[in-house]
Order: sequence, then structure tokens, then C-alpha cells
Amino acid sequence: MSSEPTPLLALDLTGTFAFGLNGALTAVRAARLDVVGVVVLGMITALGGGFIRDVLIDSLPPATLLDWRFYTLAAVGGVIAFALGKYLRRIEAAITVFDAIGLSTFAVIGASKALQSGLGVAPAVLLGVVTAVGGGTIRDMLVGQVPSVLSSGLYAIPALVGAAVTVVTIQLGVYGLPAALGSALVCFLVRMLGLYFSLDAPEPPETRRHK
Amino acid sequence: MSSEPTPLLALDLTGTFAFGLNGALTAVRAARLDVVGVVVLGMITALGGGFIRDVLIDSLPPATLLDWRFYTLAAVGGVIAFALGKYLRRIEAAITVFDAIGLSTFAVIGASKALQSGLGVAPAVLLGVVTAVGGGTIRDMLVGQVPSVLSSGLYAIPALVGAAVTVVTIQLGVYGLPAALGSALVCFLVRMLGLYFSLDAPEPPETRRHK
Amino acid sequence: MSSEPTPLLALDLTGTFAFGLNGALTAVRAARLDVVGVVVLGMITALGGGFIRDVLIDSLPPATLLDWRFYTLAAVGGVIAFALGKYLRRIEAAITVFDAIGLSTFAVIGASKALQSGLGVAPAVLLGVVTAVGGGTIRDMLVGQVPSVLSSGLYAIPALVGAAVTVVTIQLGVYGLPAALGSALVCFLVRMLGLYFSLDAPEPPETRRHK
Repeated sequence: MSSEPTPLLALDLTGTFAFGLNGALTAVRAARLDVVGVVVLGMITALGGGFIRDVLIDSLPPATLLDWRFYTLAAVGGVIAFALGKYLRRIEAAITVFDAIGLSTFAVIGASKALQSGLGVAPAVLLGVVTAVGGGTIRDMLVGQVPSVLSSGLYAIPALVGAAVTVVTIQLGVYGLPAALGSALVCFLVRMLGLYFSLDAPEPPETRRHK
Repeated sequence: MSSEPTPLLALDLTGTFAFGLNGALTAVRAARLDVVGVVVLGMITALGGGFIRDVLIDSLPPATLLDWRFYTLAAVGGVIAFALGKYLRRIEAAITVFDAIGLSTFAVIGASKALQSGLGVAPAVLLGVVTAVGGGTIRDMLVGQVPSVLSSGLYAIPALVGAAVTVVTIQLGVYGLPAALGSALVCFLVRMLGLYFSLDAPEPPETRRHK
Repeated sequence: MSSEPTPLLALDLTGTFAFGLNGALTAVRAARLDVVGVVVLGMITALGGGFIRDVLIDSLPPATLLDWRFYTLAAVGGVIAFALGKYLRRIEAAITVFDAIGLSTFAVIGASKALQSGLGVAPAVLLGVVTAVGGGTIRDMLVGQVPSVLSSGLYAIPALVGAAVTVVTIQLGVYGLPAALGSALVCFLVRMLGLYFSLDAPEPPETRRHK
């Protein structure tokens, strides 16, 4: 079972469910899948980033395979997406907000776990980002698409900012529940601003020219 | 060296060879590859699922890299597929049967290893499926195809059934060689029925409508 | 910090930078990416092969995440590729040479680490190859291409030769800095000959016929 303080755990579980749901919905749109494919891709979206982090910091088996609430919520999200996909498109805006909660929580928890495992500051920030975007990246690879996180929209950048703020508060010795929630909020706001203004990260000079 | 009882070990080695052979044949059909590519994709098909399982249950280095018979048989399967691909198509039905033996054995052994490593019932079933279908999934990703296991045919479902039966017999305290062989047989029969009747797992409601 | 002898460490760092640079350049050509995508794909090219090796030999966290020089050089290579991609094409020949230095060094160090971790001769050679070509393979998967290493050019074969020579010298008890540099040189020369004469590894009989 997780030893996170309750508010952070609640966000973590919320994010896991949202990633399972949204990941499965995205997969359904990209490829023809059967029920196994949809649920598995939802679970991979929700759990995959944490798997990569836990493998690289040698914390195995992964935390989310040891706590039934995580893998169950991820699977339930996938099943709901399979059964109700059509209706869920009407509440896409709400799902995007919950997805951003997942992004923020995963970036903060991922960076903090990586730093606690003895990694340096930069790899810890990197693993925070990997925790947040790794699952969606594996899903995109599986359905044959270039991962959207590599090419469009502000998705990795907010995670990077949230993970960096987390690591700074830990290094300053002020990390705790308020700092964790604050770091997650920073990530969440950057993500929301990016969505609202349809911001993209800069592209290589040459690519930009040809647009 | 493996400590499995002899009949299970024989099935495990047979399955490894069959996965190496069939995996390489599938890869050749999907993409233009040289000899390195064909043999490597055969080996990945045969060993990849077990690698993922062993990484996640922290049993490293993977068992199949420590026992020369496994990686050698996987490579031999790939080499035969490279050299004799054309002729092997005539015995495709036989290869499919041997492939189903691999699927069944891998699901049973994978689930049992995962449960013994301390994971819960649901993650153990999941890792049984991953052991059985993970290698083929990585192969499909490498040749740029949406993994067939996510979209068509009864391939993951038989593995799921076999892994579930395995976990149930372990929980009931009746696991042993007969139970393992019985669980594998259940998986094998479901797979054969699926092939015979060309069954597919259900697709999302909306997709189905558009067919 | 790495405990490699200085000349080998210098080659290892050079190769890491070259892989980061060349990996990012290749990624830019294959897909539309933003700055995050380019730098991440450069880092994955440079560090990914070693990650897979370190996971499989259970040497975690990966060495290159514990030594800041490696991940920093990989990132700097990616940033330079992002900013100066257009100009770098003029010195493509030089970059290919530096890339071959990386290939050679990674194959030798990878095989030697795998053998020291207790694996047998064949898996050690295999992991030498994986160290050398694994990062580029993950990059190609991420940008939606069949990994070039599986289909064209002499890229895996030189790594295989270099890793095999390394393992032989270790088994003969004559491994040391001169043997390591010699093994890397063999790999480097095979790679250069392959480039110069545009050699390919053999393809399956049937494919060849249809050319």
C-alpha cells in the first residue's frame, strides 16, 4: 500500500483513473482495437510511466502493481472507455482537466521518488517527466503513431516545470504536502494555459521555415 | 539452469523454439529485413515477454539469458526462418499449433512465477499474459505494425484464461505438474477453438457499427 | 562516477555526445518534432542502449544516470542538433565517423559489463550489440520507422564483431585497455568498410529474388 499523505494519494488515484480512461479513448481513435487492446492500452497509459521510473530507480516490483487500487482504477478507466466511448466525447473538456491532474501529480511524485532513490537533480527531473508522459508514449508507439508528446502541444513542458519545482523544494528542505501540492498546481496551470492558448513548444528552425 | 519439472521444461523449450521460428516468419512478412533483423526479431518474440515479466518481478538477469538452451533455441528458430522461410509456409498449420503450445506454456509459467514473486492475484494473471504475448508485441512495434494481439483474433484471451486457471490452482493449493499441464491445456484449447471458428474478441460499440 | 581507464572513458563520452547529436539529427529528418522531442530522442539514442543492458544485468540505476557527464553530453548533443541542424548536414561525414566511435566503444564496454555481471559468452556478445544499437532502435520506434539496424547497412554486424572480440579477449585473460581499444578498433574498421563499400547484411532468399 502507498504511504503517500491522503490528499496526494487521492490525486494520484484520480490521475491513474483519468489516464486509464483518456489513454483508452485516445487508443480507440487511433487504431482498430478489440476489448483487450482498449483496456490494456488504458492500463499502459496509466501505469507505464511509473513502470519505467521504478525500473530505472530499481524499485521493483513497481509500486502500482503492489497496490490493487492503482491497477484496478486503471483497468476500470479502460473498461469505461471501451463501453461508453461514444458518450464520453461529450465531456471531453472535463476529461482533459482530470488528465492534467494526473500529469501534475505523476510529475511531482515521480521526481520526488527519483530524488529520494539517490539520483541527482537533473535525472530526477527527467524521471518526473518520464513518469508523467511515459505511459502515453508507450501507448502511442503501440498504436503506430509518433508520440504526441514529442511533436505537439504543451504536455511535456508543464511536467518538466512541475518536476523542477518539486526538486527545488526538496533541495531547499521545504518539501512536504504543501510544497508537493504547490508544485502540482504549477504544472496544472502551465498545462491549462497551454491548452487555452493552444501553445506549442518551439520547433527546429528549418521545420518552422517550411510551414 | 531451469528447475522446472521435465515435462513443463520440454514444453517451455518447444514454445521458445516455436516463438523464435514463427516470430521471425511474421517479421519477414511485415518488413524488409536483413539476416540480423530476422534473427533478432525471432529472438525478441521468443524471449521478450519473459524479459518484461522478469524485469517487473525483479528477477534479473532474465532466466532465459542464464540458461543457454533458451536463447540458443530462440536463435536457431530465427535462423531457420531466415533460411527456409519459403518452404515453411507449407507447414503453417503445424507452426500455428506449436505457437499455441508456446502461448499456453508461457502463460502458465509466467503467472506462476509472478505469483511466487509476491504479487497479488490480478497482477500475476496480467504478467502471465504479458509473458505469453509480450515478445510478439515488441516484434510488431519494431516492424511498424499495430500489435495483432491488440486488434484481432483470440490470442490474449486464451493466455488470460490459462493464467487465471493457473493462479486459481495455486490459490487452492493444488498447483503442481498436473495442474500446470491442465492450465496450459485449457489455454491451448481456447486458442485452437478461436482459430478454428475465427473468433475475435469484442470491439468497441462504435467501431462495430461502422463495419 | 565511472571507473573506466581514461582513454576508454574519453571514447565513451565522445560516443555519447556523437549519439546524442546524430540521434537527434536522424529524428528531425524522420518526423516533425518540437524542441522537447528532438532533445529527448537524442538522449534516448545516446543512453537507451545502456539502459536496456543495465536493466537486464540488474545494474540499476543505470550508470549513465549516476554520472552527470553522460546525460549532460547526450542532452547537449540534442540541443546542438535542434539549433544547428541545417549547418550540421555539411559535416555529415565527420558526424558518421564520430557515430562509429560511439558504436565501437558501446559494443566493447557493453559486452565487457555483461560478461562481468555473470552472463555467459553468447548473452554477453548480444548485450554488447544491444548497448551499441538499442538507443537508435528505440528512437526509430518512437518516430514510427522500422529500425534501420534491422534492415539496412552494416551497423549491427560491426558491433557484433567488436563485442565478440571483446569477449574472446576476456575469456583468454588478456583483456585490458589495449585489448579493449583493439576490439573497438576492429568494430570501427568493419563499420567504416561497410560504409565505404555500401555493404548490406544478407537478406532472406525470397526477398532477394524480388529485388
